[in-house]
Amino acid sequence: MRNIRLDICYDGTRYRGWQRHPGIDNTIQGKLETALSRILEEEIEVFGSGRTDAGVHANGQVANFHCASDMPTEEILSQLRRYLPDDIGIYSCKEVSERFHARLNASNKTYCYRIWNSDTPCVFERRFMTVYPEKLDLEAMRRAAAHLVGEHDFGAFCANAKMKKSTVRTIYCLDIQKKGNEIRISITGNGFLRNMVRILVGTLLEVGRGERTAESVPSLFRSVRADAGFMAPPQGLSLMEVNY
Amino acid sequence: MRNIRLDICYDGTRYRGWQRHPGIDNTIQGKLETALSRILEEEIEVFGSGRTDAGVHANGQVANFHCASDMPTEEILSQLRRYLPDDIGIYSCKEVSERFHARLNASNKTYCYRIWNSDTPCVFERRFMTVYPEKLDLEAMRRAAAHLVGEHDFGAFCANAKMKKSTVRTIYCLDIQKKGNEIRISITGNGFLRNMVRILVGTLLEVGRGERTAESVPSLFRSVRADAGFMAPPQGLSLMEVNY
Repeated sequence: MRNIRLDICYDGTRYRGWQRHPGIDNTIQGKLETALSRILEEEIEVFGSGRTDAGVHANGQVANFHCASDMPTEEILSQLRRYLPDDIGIYSCKEVSERFHARLNASNKTYCYRIWNSDTPCVFERRFMTVYPEKLDLEAMRRAAAHLVGEHDFGAFCANAKMKKSTVRTIYCLDIQKKGNEIRISITGNGFLRNMVRILVGTLLEVGRGERTAESVPSLFRSVRADAGFMAPPQGLSLMEVNY
Repeated sequence: MRNIRLDICYDGTRYRGWQRHPGIDNTIQGKLETALSRILEEEIEVFGSGRTDAGVHANGQVANFHCASDMPTEEILSQLRRYLPDDIGIYSCKEVSERFHARLNASNKTYCYRIWNSDTPCVFERRFMTVYPEKLDLEAMRRAAAHLVGEHDFGAFCANAKMKKSTVRTIYCLDIQKKGNEIRISITGNGFLRNMVRILVGTLLEVGRGERTAESVPSLFRSVRADAGFMAPPQGLSLMEVNY
């Protein structure tokens, strides 16, 4: 069996997230599997680097699939581009070593969360931005971010209450930039728990508006979900890069 | 009566254009008039700097309206932002001299036409870009553009065959830039005939792919609609600026 890697982007606005569910048509994984199964005339299962939630975007999602077909990858790419809707794009389609697995081999991922911090119009990028006009203390948010970097138990930042496995993860970088009215929060880590990025962003926003202090953030590593911040909405979030 | 100026942006994707029509709900002018009439509790007529076609966007549309209400402009602005859908934005709302008329006083306008000149994905800006992957000779397009600049009879570039008034207009600037996969055509002129920008762009694209020469363009000034190029689709076009 050949092993094929796809580098993918999508506007997640109208999808129920990455992961295929029985009876639900509009998932990214489902759209890819349906298109590939038709193109290659065999049942294709696509493995993503990780799930993205409903409404979350990706500009650097990676996936792989196995197939028996000997169709050239250029042909698979051009047929995929023809079959897929215009809110799912394929950057590249390449044959890779049989050992490559998009999820199991991922060493780190970068997410970006975009906030429109103004009540002026945000018409053209509104699908990719969370509008949050309240005044935010960026310096306090950056101090809180510094506390989050490193290896910690992020159990309080996990939406899955029944999580049995380790909730220890490492954040390598958490950067907050403001340019004009837009705030961009970039987070790179070795792995993320369910909704973890959105709960981290919600917690940082609560620090930014003075509802909790930056210095209180480390206490969350020994705490529970109810103590961390709200879950920021999905539309501001994009998966930007997966490294192997 | 007070005279109020609005600076407006919109994603035109789901609208039937600027101009209100009886029985058609989704026009930009219609949305503005409905919102303003409700907010000010009087019948409001909005005058735009010009009509944009169905599917065309604006990042610098200007309009004005008269009202008897003494509601402060800050309050009108904040209520308008609350009432309008998220694909129509108001940059500013200011009281102006009673002589100001958004269309009659406009001295020049700038439009921008965006082309995605690649078969790689254009997922995030697809609503504002015309995908046109064919190879284009930019130098020939720039030579053709130079012939279009100046005062000319643009009758061949007007979609209104019954146009009785003068079809002479002046183009001050016609600039073609390529950055990455994107080509931007910017056009500034003292006025534009119906569909003129889209027909100019279509003609330039035909030059770019070698279907007509740059040198043949001046003959179009003494010609008819059938001789000029195709009408480029609306989604790549945005009204960027109106000057007074």
